[in-house]
Amino acid sequence: MDAEAAKYIGAGLAAMGAGLAGIGVGYIFGSHLLGAFRNPDAEPRIAGRLFLGFAVVEALGLIAAVVALYLAFAG
Amino acid sequence: MDAEAAKYIGAGLAAMGAGLAGIGVGYIFGSHLLGAFRNPDAEPRIAGRLFLGFAVVEALGLIAAVVALYLAFAG
Amino acid sequence: MDAEAAKYIGAGLAAMGAGLAGIGVGYIFGSHLLGAFRNPDAEPRIAGRLFLGFAVVEALGLIAAVVALYLAFAG
Amino acid sequence: MDAEAAKYIGAGLAAMGAGLAGIGVGYIFGSHLLGAFRNPDAEPRIAGRLFLGFAVVEALGLIAAVVALYLAFAG
Amino acid sequence: MDAEAAKYIGAGLAAMGAGLAGIGVGYIFGSHLLGAFRNPDAEPRIAGRLFLGFAVVEALGLIAAVVALYLAFAG
Repeated sequence: MDAEAAKYIGAGLAAMGAGLAGIGVGYIFGSHLLGAFRNPDAEPRIAGRLFLGFAVVEALGLIAAVVALYLAFAG
Repeated sequence: MDAEAAKYIGAGLAAMGAGLAGIGVGYIFGSHLLGAFRNPDAEPRIAGRLFLGFAVVEALGLIAAVVALYLAFAG
Repeated sequence: MDAEAAKYIGAGLAAMGAGLAGIGVGYIFGSHLLGAFRNPDAEPRIAGRLFLGFAVVEALGLIAAVVALYLAFAG
Repeated sequence: MDAEAAKYIGAGLAAMGAGLAGIGVGYIFGSHLLGAFRNPDAEPRIAGRLFLGFAVVEALGLIAAVVALYLAFAG
Repeated sequence: MDAEAAKYIGAGLAAMGAGLAGIGVGYIFGSHLLGAFRNPDAEPRIAGRLFLGFAVVEALGLIAAVVALYLAFAG
């Protein structure tokens, strides 16, 4: 396999990584929504943890996305 | 494997990434629905978090979709 | 592997992506059903969120399906 | 396959590792949010465990990210 | 495939192993947090089990990480 071909397969694999991180972000927001419906008054106090968790997982997904986009387009 | 062939396999892998992000989006909406049936009156107040979470996960899925469509069609 | 062969493998991988998005859609409808049995009177009001969530995840699955169908039939 | 090509495929695989760790971090934050809505007053006392768990899983994801970025860009 | 190329693919696969262990560590900490919010007074007594479970799974992830880093950098 030459390097040109490998870049396209690597891009596809890295795009899967972005999708996998999406499962983690989805779980964070889903859990926040479940909790917020139980106790809506506490929502503003707890939203800070939501954004922290969202940011650190989204960062992992965006690293995978950067690898995917670089391999797909900068090849 | 030549580059033409690798693009098709990479497109298939990246399409899996779009599907994986769909699990995350599904969990967000599913949790919102579960909560909304418990406490329908709080739904308008909490829907903002739903759309935020949906947007950030869908973005990860669309990055994977862009990689998939580019590799499949722009090859 | 030549390009003709790679298209068929890529089509299979992309079809897995459509199936993965099906997990997300399934979770949305499943959660809606669980909630609707607890609180049937609220169902018409909340069904709008169901259709929105269903549509955005189905879209991710259909992108994967389009890639799969293109690679399988337009080869 | 030559070394240049293998680096790109390895980068894609390692990017999947970053995404997989994102599922773990997402579960930690999601569980913390679910619990914090049930018992908001205990949140400051328990947040220490959140940060410990977050740090050790994020570390695993960042190791995978370092391997992915090194293989993609330093090739 | 020559040995140089195989090292890079092996590094990527090993980095996936570190990420997969992260799912396990995330489930341990997430479950601990869920339980701790229900019964905060028991937390110090139960934290010993948390650290034991964390240590044995993190060890598995770090073995994968060491393999990934060695293959990527010492090649």
